Parts: sequence; structure tokens; C-alpha cells
Amino acid sequence: MELNSNHFDNSGNAVMVDIGEKEATKRIAVASGKIFVDEKTYKMIAEGKVSKGDVLGVARIAGIMAAKQTFLSIPLCHPISIESISIDFEFPIDEASIDKKFIKAICSVKTTGTTGVEMEALNGVCIALLTIYDMCKSIEKGMTIGEIQLEKKSGGKSGNYERQL
Amino acid sequence: MELNSNHFDNSGNAVMVDIGEKEATKRIAVASGKIFVDEKTYKMIAEGKVSKGDVLGVARIAGIMAAKQTFLSIPLCHPISIESISIDFEFPIDEASIDKKFIKAICSVKTTGTTGVEMEALNGVCIALLTIYDMCKSIEKGMTIGEIQLEKKSGGKSGNYERQL
Amino acid sequence: MELNSNHFDNSGNAVMVDIGEKEATKRIAVASGKIFVDEKTYKMIAEGKVSKGDVLGVARIAGIMAAKQTFLSIPLCHPISIESISIDFEFPIDEASIDKKFIKAICSVKTTGTTGVEMEALNGVCIALLTIYDMCKSIEKGMTIGEIQLEKKSGGKSGNYERQL
Amino acid sequence: MELNSNHFDNSGNAVMVDIGEKEATKRIAVASGKIFVDEKTYKMIAEGKVSKGDVLGVARIAGIMAAKQTFLSIPLCHPISIESISIDFEFPIDEASIDKKFIKAICSVKTTGTTGVEMEALNGVCIALLTIYDMCKSIEKGMTIGEIQLEKKSGGKSGNYERQL
Amino acid sequence: MELNSNHFDNSGNAVMVDIGEKEATKRIAVASGKIFVDEKTYKMIAEGKVSKGDVLGVARIAGIMAAKQTFLSIPLCHPISIESISIDFEFPIDEASIDKKFIKAICSVKTTGTTGVEMEALNGVCIALLTIYDMCKSIEKGMTIGEIQLEKKSGGKSGNYERQL
Amino acid sequence: MELNSNHFDNSGNAVMVDIGEKEATKRIAVASGKIFVDEKTYKMIAEGKVSKGDVLGVARIAGIMAAKQTFLSIPLCHPISIESISIDFEFPIDEASIDKKFIKAICSVKTTGTTGVEMEALNGVCIALLTIYDMCKSIEKGMTIGEIQLEKKSGGKSGNYERQL
Repeated sequence: MELNSNHFDNSGNAVMVDIGEKEATKRIAVASGKIFVDEKTYKMIAEGKVSKGDVLGVARIAGIMAAKQTFLSIPLCHPISIESISIDFEFPIDEASIDKKFIKAICSVKTTGTTGVEMEALNGVCIALLTIYDMCKSIEKGMTIGEIQLEKKSGGKSGNYERQL
Repeated sequence: MELNSNHFDNSGNAVMVDIGEKEATKRIAVASGKIFVDEKTYKMIAEGKVSKGDVLGVARIAGIMAAKQTFLSIPLCHPISIESISIDFEFPIDEASIDKKFIKAICSVKTTGTTGVEMEALNGVCIALLTIYDMCKSIEKGMTIGEIQLEKKSGGKSGNYERQL
Repeated sequence: MELNSNHFDNSGNAVMVDIGEKEATKRIAVASGKIFVDEKTYKMIAEGKVSKGDVLGVARIAGIMAAKQTFLSIPLCHPISIESISIDFEFPIDEASIDKKFIKAICSVKTTGTTGVEMEALNGVCIALLTIYDMCKSIEKGMTIGEIQLEKKSGGKSGNYERQL
Repeated sequence: MELNSNHFDNSGNAVMVDIGEKEATKRIAVASGKIFVDEKTYKMIAEGKVSKGDVLGVARIAGIMAAKQTFLSIPLCHPISIESISIDFEFPIDEASIDKKFIKAICSVKTTGTTGVEMEALNGVCIALLTIYDMCKSIEKGMTIGEIQLEKKSGGKSGNYERQL
Repeated sequence: MELNSNHFDNSGNAVMVDIGEKEATKRIAVASGKIFVDEKTYKMIAEGKVSKGDVLGVARIAGIMAAKQTFLSIPLCHPISIESISIDFEFPIDEASIDKKFIKAICSVKTTGTTGVEMEALNGVCIALLTIYDMCKSIEKGMTIGEIQLEKKSGGKSGNYERQL
Repeated sequence: MELNSNHFDNSGNAVMVDIGEKEATKRIAVASGKIFVDEKTYKMIAEGKVSKGDVLGVARIAGIMAAKQTFLSIPLCHPISIESISIDFEFPIDEASIDKKFIKAICSVKTTGTTGVEMEALNGVCIALLTIYDMCKSIEKGMTIGEIQLEKKSGGKSGNYERQL
């Protein structure tokens, strides 16, 4: 089986893919991920949002800044003229039956260019969730981060993608 | 309920915790995480390791470099005199029954200092897994990253931690 | 009163503004600022310029490099295809009556794009002045930096701006 | 007059000062600065703090992250094992008579080492204030940043410093 | 004789050249360089490529990442929308008569823009070779890096360039 | 033949070497390198030094800043508490017979720590020389950079090293 990811040349050496022949189109990517936390940590973060100690405000800024710097962290990512980044958090508050609480981060990134912004969206999610971990780790060390995935992307030759439930 | 994470002052403002009074000790942190991939992608990565197209070699370097830069990405992390970083990958090849294949990344970080290296280990895992995603995304967009967690830490006032199975 | 800066969404969460619908125009921004110094420090810097010990040469490079990296420092700034940056210094040598001497830094930045370069110009000024402070702080600790302001900008939907005297 | 700042060698070439012979001591630096804004902008920021649209929360994170990276921005600054950073904002709300409103940023940095952290504190102040400017510039372009100064420092051979009123 | 490099203004102050009036063209630059090593080190690297211990794989990633960041390292370089980067290594294995063995690194960079990518290609070569040095320095300290040069460039007003043998 | 550089583990995977057991000693490294230029370029740089257009002043700052950031560029380098960096340039003006003129850059780096600073010194040399290339490339494209080498190092378990003529 060939490794035909175009991140390698014919000799199997890593290359930064040539995007010069691709068409500049409007592109959007949305990624999401979760941090699973204890009831106690969950309350702290949720209440912190409306009172004092804004864990999510800090995480949002960290995620936005990271998304901009994706090309500096992921070896074969291109520098990109990002047009917008937003990070939202969702609290599944009513899901009382859920054993493990979680906070969901959703990162949306837009550009007009010749390559997509999936990695920027995914990186924004990861660093936002790691920032939550950092700020809560003195309370709970057992938090896990997971279900980091691309939700959808549009624009570009490979067409639109939307994750199936 | 108080947000007593020491990443906030009494007014709820984010602060970089004072580690000046803490004792310099030998500290180790180990974190892990997984990327869940299709059979096809799995084979490509696994075979790439031994033949040509070394996805994991690139991911390892990305993770090591990211771990060193954690204080530049995570807002309230301290700059740290890291003494060593390693990233290993595990292939649960024999688990034939597993519906979804995965590759596991394990990052170990050591320092002698006044604060721990959990975030460095977790960040190393995240960026290594994101790099795998990046290099395989032209083949499979539905990969998910998950189960990112601290496996163990030693050193420091709060004592040792080892994740329970 | 609404916070209608478009750096927040309707829920008050910070976002990186969408500049995708804005028109790409030629844009220029000029910012300035001053460092107020003692007679002694003033002479050192001014003479250093023409003889040895080029404080301003170092400060200029620091300011230019910082202006390029503005999107890495200011959380909601966009990466920008900067076309030129220059930093000039003015010495109000003849103003003999002035109690406190100062050196004025002026940073001009140009781009063709969908968002302005005010922050790049202001950041270039700040880091240039901080560099002067750093290089002279063993001589005088009481220096102050001030009057950092946008002098003018042109291009973009909001039109031209020129500071009134 | 000699430029005896030790940031130059005998030939007038910039050097990164040798701090290897200096004693490692506990060091603290506090710097401050102001952004002068219109009544309207002032209210937005002040109210944003307690309701939605947290300009100062974003500025605080930007300042803390910048302070950590000072050695990457200011050419002759040393990398430093920073132990803590905090940024506070003061609102002189009751000074009704003041023509121009302002918000004051105060940055405190601590380390144990062979060189001081004045530049880190000053840089934290500058970037925090620039971030406020960035987030409010669609409302008011005429804001100025000023009175950036070292408030006090302790530790090190040159002794303590406290700004005189 | 005038210093008419356009990296200085009429007063001799460094400026980041204005590329706003230049035409956006497809541009390619190829640079190369060598690291001269002992027979022993040479064999280790060459064999490492096909067996275990992939010095060149690590060097390639380091060079690609560095090329992307050239505008952050070289003071007057512009940020560039790089479209592709590749780094190849050549082993002049058959040149048995050569006294000193060497490994040659070749870096190719492409963009569509108003300024060239020579510095990106040269920087990619340098950092790739420095990475080889780093990974082999416990074996041989006397390695030298040399013959770093622009091989060819195309696109842009100044026309094509190809190094003469 | 084994690749016993300790930058690989037993499986041949790259690791950041553990320096935790090494002794903290005073360490110095000196590296040098040359840029070979035409008579015309040579004069411009040499005269620029004493009159206007200070190519070497800019190159020195670039090299110092790069040396500080070596751990961010070279994948397996450790972050280091650098105590001093200096970069000198030598002009072999009297060597009238030399066919190709050159400027030599010498970078000295000091630290007290558990690992050496060879890579910092070498990186400082490379980036300083690349900066000269960048600033002179509109005049001469055929410049080459070479003879980049470690001159001497002291401190550490492996003892002192001094390059033989």
C-alpha cells in the first residue's frame, strides 16, 4: 500500500505540499473537542464564567492565538491569511444523567486562499482545552481531553465535508 | 463554591502563579493520547514507519518542539528548564477485534525545578497527534484525537500521581 | 451602553473579527511615541548615533521585527502581508527650553489588504522605545515612555484618519 | 561623554551583557502605564469588566504572555526563569474632574536570578495597553498610551529603586 | 561608494523595503549548502537514513520549519505566503577520492508574490545543516558547514538567476 | 556501525537528551563563519560600518536574537539560561592578495548549566551571515557562506575543545 498522502515525495521524504496551483477560494473549517471533568471542576468553570475567575475567557484567547500560529507548530502547515477565528464553549448542563461532565470547545476559522484551515481549527480547540486543563489541574489531575475532530469544512477542490453523526 | 485554582487572584483575575517559594525538585510527567483512524490510514502509518514516508518521525519532532514551547502557547505556564523530552508511539497491532484502530502517543518530560511539567507532556502529545492528523488528512478526514491524559507525575509538593485504570 | 467594538460577539466573547468581506486596499499607518530621558542619557543616545554605541540602530531593528510579529503578540490581530516598515527617530535638539529631553520614534507600515496596520505601527513604536529603555537603564531608571499614538492612517472602509494637533 | 551602558563593548558594538558573575537573588519589578481614552470608551471598558465583553481580561492575558516572551522581543534581554507575573488594572473612577479618562495597568514580575525583570514588567504593561487599544480602536482612534514607567524594583547589586512622586 | 542596497534609506537607516509596487509573480528559489564530516560520521548519517536513527529526517523538518519562519529571524525579510518547501539531501558516495566527506542539503521554496524567497531557501539550508551538526556533535566536533549559496531563482523584476559553475 | 549519538534511543527514535544528571558548570562556546563577497560588496559593508548603512550592526542584532532562540529552531536543543552573547566581525583588509574577500563573524556564548552552548554560537553565526546576505543581495547574488565551525568550547564532562589549525 502506497503512502499517497501528498506530504511525502516519491522517495518518502516529508515535503510542504505545493499549493501554488490550487484555486483561491473562500474556506471555512469548524473543529470541536471536549474536556471531561469532575462535577466539582465542572461547576467551578461554569460558575467562573458568570462570576469571577474566567477560565474560559483565558482558554478562548489561548486558542485563538494558537490557531494563528498553527504554521509555526505543525511542521508541514502553510502560513495562512486567516480572516477570522472564533471559539465557543458549550455546557451540556441539562444532561443530568451524564456520568462524566464535559465542556465542549468549538473553533471556527475562515480564510480566502489556496489551502484549508482544518489544522488551525483543530489546533485552536486543542490549545483551548489544554489551557482549561492547566488552569484546573491543581483541583483535578484526572481530566481527559478527547473527541477532537473536524466538524465540517467548505471550500477547496476536495469539496465540502460534514461529519456524520 | 470558590474557584480556588491558584491561577486567579482574589478578584478573579488570571495570574501566573508564584513558584518562587516552591522547592526545586526532580520532576517527571508522562502524558498520553490517541488518534483513532481507519484501517487504511492505520496501515499507511504503520508501514510508513518501517519503509518510506515516516509520519511518526515527523510527529515526534513536532511534539518535542511543541513541548519546549509550551510556555509560549499556554498563557499561565512558566518557562521551564526542560532536561529531557521523549515521545513514543504504540501500535496495538494485535488487538484485532478493535473496531477503530488507533495510534497512541506517549510523551515524557523531565526537569529539575519549582514547577511541574504536566502541561509540557500533554502539549507534546497533542501536537504530535495533530501532526499525524495533518499528514493523513488527505486520506481520511474523519480521524479523531482523544483520551489525552496525564499518566503520571512525580516530584513537587503535591506528591506523585498515577492514573488509575 | 453596548460594547460594540467588533472584537466581541453578541455574548461578549472575544473573537478575531471577520475581515473576509472587506475590500483589499492599499493601507498605511503611522504611529509615534516618545521616551523622556535625562540630559545625560539624551546626550549619550544622540552622540551614540554618530559615534559609537548605536542605541537607535538596535531599537530600530527591534521595532521593525516586533511590527512584523504583532499578530503573535496582540491576541485579536490578524496576520498581515506587510509590504514595508520604517522607523525614524527625531531629536528635538533645538528645544533648549524643554525641561525633560525626549527622543521620538515614528513607525510607518504599509500593506495591501483587508485590514489596517495601526497595531503594527503602534507595536513597532513601543518595542523600539522599550529597547532604548533597556539599553540605557543602567544609566537612568526613571525614564518614562509616553505619548504613544496613531498619527494617521489611510485606506480601508473607515476612511482616512489624521490626528488633530 | 562615554556611552557606558554595558550593552556595548569597547568598540561600541551591542552585546548581551554577561550576567554570569552576578549573584542570584530574589528580584521583583513593578511597572505601570496608562491608556487615555474618551468618556465613551472608558465606560465601555469599565462596564465590560463586570458585564460582557471583557477587554481587560484579554489585555491581561496578552500582557502576561508578552512578559514571558520579553527576551524574544527586546534584543539584548536575557531569557529569565520567571516565577510569577500579575497584571492589575486601576480605574480612577472618582476623579470626576479629570479631563481625559484613563485606565492604568500595573505589571509585577518576580524571579530568582542574576538579572532583573524590569523589562518584563514594562513589556507586560505595553502589550496589555496595546491590546486595549486594539479592542477599542473601532470606537476611538485618538487614544494615547503613556506614562509607562518603572515603579519599583528590588534585588540585585544595584539595589532597590522606587520611583519618587 | 554608495551603499545602494535598498535595505537602507537615504540617512543610512535600516528599513524593510517597500514591496507594494512590485508585481506578484510566481517565484522559485533554490539554495544549497554542505556539512563536511569525518568518514565515521558520514557513514552513521548515511546508514541512519536507511536503518534506524534518521538524522536527515529530523534535519529536513527543522529546515522546513525554519524556512517558514525566516521573516521572524532575518530582520528585514517580509512575511511571505509560501506555497511549498522541500529539502533534499545528496550523498556524493562514489566520490571515493574526496578527502573530506560531505552531505549536501538543497532547499527549494515557491511563492506567488511581490518578493523573492531566496532567504527562505538559504535559511532552510542553514538550519537543516545545523540540525545535522547538533545530532552528530557528540561524535565529531570538527564538522564544518559551508558552500551555502543560492543555486537559482526565477520570477520577479530582477529576472532569473542561475549560479555559474 | 551504531549511531551512538545520544540524540536517538535504542529504537532509533529521536529524543531530547536527558541532561538532568550532568553537572552544572560554567560553559563557553565560540563559533565562527564567513561570507565571501565581491570587492564591491566588501567595500560597501566595510565602509558602511564607519559611515552610514550599518549592515553589520543589523547582522549582529539578528545573530544575538537568533542565538537566544536556538532551542526554538534546532529540534533537539534544550532551552538554556544564556548569560552572555557577543558577535564580532573581522575584516581581513590587509590580505590584498586574497581573490575573494570575506567578512568573518565570531559568536561567543556563555552559560552556567548542564549542557553546552555550541549550537547557540553556531546559530548566531549563521543568522548573522544570512542577514548580511539579505541586506546585500540586491547588489550581489553570488555571495557564499562557509567555514562555519566551532572554534572552541570549555566546560562540561567532555572537556575543552579547541579547533586545530
